[in-house]
Amino acid sequence: MADAFRQALSDAQGMVRRWSEKSGLAQSPDASTLSMAMGSALAGGKAFRAFLVLESSRLYDVDEEPRERAAFAIECLHAYSLVHDDLPCMDDDDMRRGRPTVHREWDEATAVLTGDALQTLAFQLVSNPRVGPHAASLTESLARASMAMVRGQMADIAAERVETPLTLQEITQLQSEKTGALITWASTAGPQLVGAHSEGLSRYAKAIGLAFQIADDVLDETGDAAAVGKAVGKDSAAGKATFVSHLGLDGARARARELVEEACDALDTYGDAADTLKQAAQFVVDRTH
Amino acid sequence: MADAFRQALSDAQGMVRRWSEKSGLAQSPDASTLSMAMGSALAGGKAFRAFLVLESSRLYDVDEEPRERAAFAIECLHAYSLVHDDLPCMDDDDMRRGRPTVHREWDEATAVLTGDALQTLAFQLVSNPRVGPHAASLTESLARASMAMVRGQMADIAAERVETPLTLQEITQLQSEKTGALITWASTAGPQLVGAHSEGLSRYAKAIGLAFQIADDVLDETGDAAAVGKAVGKDSAAGKATFVSHLGLDGARARARELVEEACDALDTYGDAADTLKQAAQFVVDRTH
Repeated sequence: MADAFRQALSDAQGMVRRWSEKSGLAQSPDASTLSMAMGSALAGGKAFRAFLVLESSRLYDVDEEPRERAAFAIECLHAYSLVHDDLPCMDDDDMRRGRPTVHREWDEATAVLTGDALQTLAFQLVSNPRVGPHAASLTESLARASMAMVRGQMADIAAERVETPLTLQEITQLQSEKTGALITWASTAGPQLVGAHSEGLSRYAKAIGLAFQIADDVLDETGDAAAVGKAVGKDSAAGKATFVSHLGLDGARARARELVEEACDALDTYGDAADTLKQAAQFVVDRTH
Repeated sequence: MADAFRQALSDAQGMVRRWSEKSGLAQSPDASTLSMAMGSALAGGKAFRAFLVLESSRLYDVDEEPRERAAFAIECLHAYSLVHDDLPCMDDDDMRRGRPTVHREWDEATAVLTGDALQTLAFQLVSNPRVGPHAASLTESLARASMAMVRGQMADIAAERVETPLTLQEITQLQSEKTGALITWASTAGPQLVGAHSEGLSRYAKAIGLAFQIADDVLDETGDAAAVGKAVGKDSAAGKATFVSHLGLDGARARARELVEEACDALDTYGDAADTLKQAAQFVVDRTH
């Protein structure tokens, strides 16, 4: 992993920890169950989406508080989706980010409400007046991304219940909603925070979002549960159509590499300032967890 | 029920139906499961919170689109909380608003995601630029109300698991979070939409919020499931502390009547213009469902 990216990702993780503490979500003897469960859901993540917000903000000279609010918000929204996704009625997972899932550590009702509260917190963070004059439009675009995510999750569940496996095009569409929408929001938060628009960052986000999912499918096939921090091999065992089942392992890896190139090309206008984002694109396909 | 209030409530119900259709949530052959489930959760409600938004908006001459967005948003937020509350891991209810709950009509995963999507839609509606210059602060206060609601729900669950029944003060605090926060937001949305503050509407909201919950406890004790549209007698059967268990049926009814008077007094500054809101306060304690 390239040094600049390694450092920036570690900074983003530190920022998430700081905002978790600031928001009263850290482990402490007098914390409520809700606070502890929210803090637990936020802990130990890669903070990749927060990193994207912070880096795209750097390109647009966004002030510290607005960019950190947006970065923490996207991690809250992502964490909410994981807590609900892990529920017994959804993916029924026991482990997440190397620790017990919220419904395993506490119970299902706590997990439902913890996810609900994390979603609420995300919107509370970005609609705050301190985000500046573009708070409302940033909040609305976060809501659109969040809605796309839920649509993608519904499509994912529906796909598991039909006999015909999804086509490559259908999987691509589903993933662009399920995981791509939040990655796109994060990658374009910087310009959005100053009322600007960036075609380059949108194209970058689209490419890494897809590469991210392809890499996830590859990891599900080849990864080690301990390193990945959650169960692996579930999709393949379930006979689910994935990028790997369509393209094969080598084909999927090759497609991911192509997408990394597309992502880097899209950032040409930013010159060296975008080097860390380019390293991030590479990380997306090289990661082992 | 007084005529002006009856008409205004029916108008609010019509508005919710209109916005459900406009948002693609009505029943139609080509609607997605998510849209149908969201529409089902929104259908058949009293639209009392929407009514509060519309009436408080009338007192402050708020334009049609901002007030309708806020009114529909609070109904979406309320509907989300009902869908999740009804889940097997929470209250495990089969009926709501006279029809099967979302997890009974579809399944649990659909109910989790439907609630999630309704919460998202609420924030999307109020952060839209068409809400005007106060969109961000209105969104933030909606998030605060939503967070208070989840805290109240957590406290409610925790209370069921301890041997000592809650004191009257604890129940009052719990209810002010669980149901009072949304009612306060709805009752003050009008002034908030024009950047104003109303002490009177805040006091009104606090009083009717509490009266509403007391009336709910009375209904749970005395109501008829068919008229109420959901199961009754559950709290009393579970030996749960309620306003009725503390004050007795007559005491609870007397306290509710006192609160209606407090609510009406708080609106004195508005003169006749607040008559419909005063009738609403009366309705809160007189309702049979």
